[in-house]
Amino acid sequence: MITDSLKMKLISIVGQENYEDSPASKLVYSFDATPNYQAMPDAILSPRNKNEVADIVKLCNEHTIPIVPRGSGTNLSAGTTPLEGGIVLLFKHLDQILEIDQENLTITVQPGVNTLEMIQTVEEIGLFYPPDPSSMKISQIGGNISENSGGLRGLKYGVTRDYVLGLEMVLPNGEIIKTGGKLAKDVAGYDLTRLFVGSEGTLGIVTEAILKLIPKPESKKTMLALYDSMEAAAQTVSTIIANRVIPATLEFLDQPTLKVVEDFSKIGLPTDVEAVLLIEQDGPVQSVQADMEKMTAICVQSGALKVNVAKSEWEAEQLSTARRSALSALARLKPTTILEDATVPRSEIANMVRAINEIALKYQVEICTFGHAGDGNLHPTCMTDSRNKDEMHRVEQALEEIFQTAVSLGGTITGEHGVGAMKAPYLHLKLGEEGIEAMQALKHAFDPNNIMNPSKIFAKSSRKRIVVNQS
Amino acid sequence: MITDSLKMKLISIVGQENYEDSPASKLVYSFDATPNYQAMPDAILSPRNKNEVADIVKLCNEHTIPIVPRGSGTNLSAGTTPLEGGIVLLFKHLDQILEIDQENLTITVQPGVNTLEMIQTVEEIGLFYPPDPSSMKISQIGGNISENSGGLRGLKYGVTRDYVLGLEMVLPNGEIIKTGGKLAKDVAGYDLTRLFVGSEGTLGIVTEAILKLIPKPESKKTMLALYDSMEAAAQTVSTIIANRVIPATLEFLDQPTLKVVEDFSKIGLPTDVEAVLLIEQDGPVQSVQADMEKMTAICVQSGALKVNVAKSEWEAEQLSTARRSALSALARLKPTTILEDATVPRSEIANMVRAINEIALKYQVEICTFGHAGDGNLHPTCMTDSRNKDEMHRVEQALEEIFQTAVSLGGTITGEHGVGAMKAPYLHLKLGEEGIEAMQALKHAFDPNNIMNPSKIFAKSSRKRIVVNQS
Repeated sequence: MITDSLKMKLISIVGQENYEDSPASKLVYSFDATPNYQAMPDAILSPRNKNEVADIVKLCNEHTIPIVPRGSGTNLSAGTTPLEGGIVLLFKHLDQILEIDQENLTITVQPGVNTLEMIQTVEEIGLFYPPDPSSMKISQIGGNISENSGGLRGLKYGVTRDYVLGLEMVLPNGEIIKTGGKLAKDVAGYDLTRLFVGSEGTLGIVTEAILKLIPKPESKKTMLALYDSMEAAAQTVSTIIANRVIPATLEFLDQPTLKVVEDFSKIGLPTDVEAVLLIEQDGPVQSVQADMEKMTAICVQSGALKVNVAKSEWEAEQLSTARRSALSALARLKPTTILEDATVPRSEIANMVRAINEIALKYQVEICTFGHAGDGNLHPTCMTDSRNKDEMHRVEQALEEIFQTAVSLGGTITGEHGVGAMKAPYLHLKLGEEGIEAMQALKHAFDPNNIMNPSKIFAKSSRKRIVVNQS
Repeated sequence: MITDSLKMKLISIVGQENYEDSPASKLVYSFDATPNYQAMPDAILSPRNKNEVADIVKLCNEHTIPIVPRGSGTNLSAGTTPLEGGIVLLFKHLDQILEIDQENLTITVQPGVNTLEMIQTVEEIGLFYPPDPSSMKISQIGGNISENSGGLRGLKYGVTRDYVLGLEMVLPNGEIIKTGGKLAKDVAGYDLTRLFVGSEGTLGIVTEAILKLIPKPESKKTMLALYDSMEAAAQTVSTIIANRVIPATLEFLDQPTLKVVEDFSKIGLPTDVEAVLLIEQDGPVQSVQADMEKMTAICVQSGALKVNVAKSEWEAEQLSTARRSALSALARLKPTTILEDATVPRSEIANMVRAINEIALKYQVEICTFGHAGDGNLHPTCMTDSRNKDEMHRVEQALEEIFQTAVSLGGTITGEHGVGAMKAPYLHLKLGEEGIEAMQALKHAFDPNNIMNPSKIFAKSSRKRIVVNQS
């Protein structure tokens, strides 16, 4: 609880205008993009620099006040919900691109920088920042780092972790440390940089980041392969890779998703097929051309009904935008949309898609599946209504079985959304109790008072629940 | 100390033939490739499987016996010296490639697999494992993982960390955990996989690893650019990158190194120039051709005297082999060779090379410089004689000033060799005391009894020393 005297101290750090605790403000920051998790913070603070962040953390550590660092709150694991109250920390004053270094191919940013704006800024000068989470239009780079965000280009280019070279972090004890640097190689001690990436705000707060850039690929081509069998589509994915072609994007959409996306985007997507693969390749013109031909042949051999290569950049962009709109499109169908990200080795995509459909049938719930097939990173998405207790119970059972299946196929419970509060009850499926214990020891070493984003990653008492807190 | 009763228990785990404690055996494992660090182990154990490893660790944890996991001992930071006695653990029975998965592009290996053999095995089927430490002919993949080994292809392809997808580890408490998997994306909790990579055997023991493979580039070209000015050579490096070309290899050799390497390899390297850049590009034929032309033009514009493109694969291989022989060649000059790996942002290469030469002059020591210029990862190499106390004192001062300079240029004290015992006294230069404290807390969380490779990474008492233990 924030006492009056503590409140005065916090205001003296950030200034009156950067301390909010009106009921309206608290309501706004009581939830994130994840359905059915809500809890009121005690206050929302917007520090103006890293020293203010450090001062806030020191005070909170002394008074055991939870801190939830929050970018745009677009995460899908309830990662930024203030489930134990305390302070939600915003980065609206830390929103500057500090430097683009063209000799070292790095960009130095504050955490509040918008992802898409950053991507567009570097593309204007011929550089490229590949991680492209579907939320990039509104997400902040600090959030991407804390969540180790993925995206559509993960197959060829990797995820956020692969582009973070250095961090400035405020640790839970209020100390500011710098890790890494503009360095291709650095083995001075443990790799704290990559440890902090994806630590979901539980180990500290990012106040600055040095990101790696690469040259922008000189060309890009997009194609759509249509299938009357999900298995054939799924099989194509690993056949392409086994044939030594690594496309930039290799997305899968099933028929229900296609219908909804077409209804939303109206760009003429086929809705009478079982599944499509949306494939993009980038690179030097001739290599892209050669890869597109190779992949077209593989798609046809693997049973594609038809392969359409986009005739223009505009058409390609339409396809890609339609794919990115899948969540928004699906969210229109029912009051509650639960988008999951169980992930498997790509050779198991066909088995996983089949299992998801069987599970949906078994529990009588509606699940559409799309996602980053090349990564084995599927998004089975459940359209439901959180007010329907009976159905929610079945949804809960279905999702648990999906997680179990993913793990039994050599996969994981979350490919890119993070554990947050939502997956915490399932973490033992992937890690075992020994793995969780090791991670808890690590958390305790950094944050003995458990002030940094508590209730995330590690489940408290009950397991097996989806709804922690009804809104 | 290993008591008789503990020895009996250890023998009952690994079998008599896998427990060695003869004076000869102990001498063999009392040092590694790093000059001037030596200490006797109490015993050398060769477990036959992960359960034996776990049983050994449990016993050692109970009796507080140090364990030093050792691959081929090729590291250059005294990382595998048993400075506090205890057990040296060998992996000669864990030397199998367990699986090559062509659909998921992964290879699953035991830690004792030889790096080059693994690389050749995957290349035979058109796949590629890029990390290529200069020691790869004799190094083991477990050692590469523990050291996060780099190599010549780091610039374009990254380092060992970027290819480790999953690990099976024995923790210091003897528990066996599995991290990651054949997964392009996995955010189920903290990234223990990357934390263990480069942790120098201080957090646990790798018993199995899943590594990422990529398609083998279809072609490769090699060229040599000759300079009469080191600055011009160094400047070329960042100009190439700033022009959006990322070659596979971009190596720098100064004149003293060239002379020694030519004397060793006798392939007709130029020895009358100040410096050369050895540049390789790989990929689709046409892209490689285009990049080679671009880079040739940049080299010439930047002041290269001459640019020679290798006319055959044989000639290219000769150049590349000669470069890899640099350490062996330099080691012939004087009784003691200290090869360092201070690393800077690549834009600072010219400043760093200049500083190294000034420092060598100031302290009157002989330093040759070569290394992975594209990564900013230089290898200033000091030829000296550890019996000459006065010179060793000056070497010590020179190296410390080199580390300080690297850090002041935004660099690090070690790019790819690890901290080990050798760099431990300098770690605070890069991390500050807060950074070291955070890492120590982490170490303590995993290994409260400090049994795993003690005296490494964290300096004990005295700082600023090179010679811990005279041989």
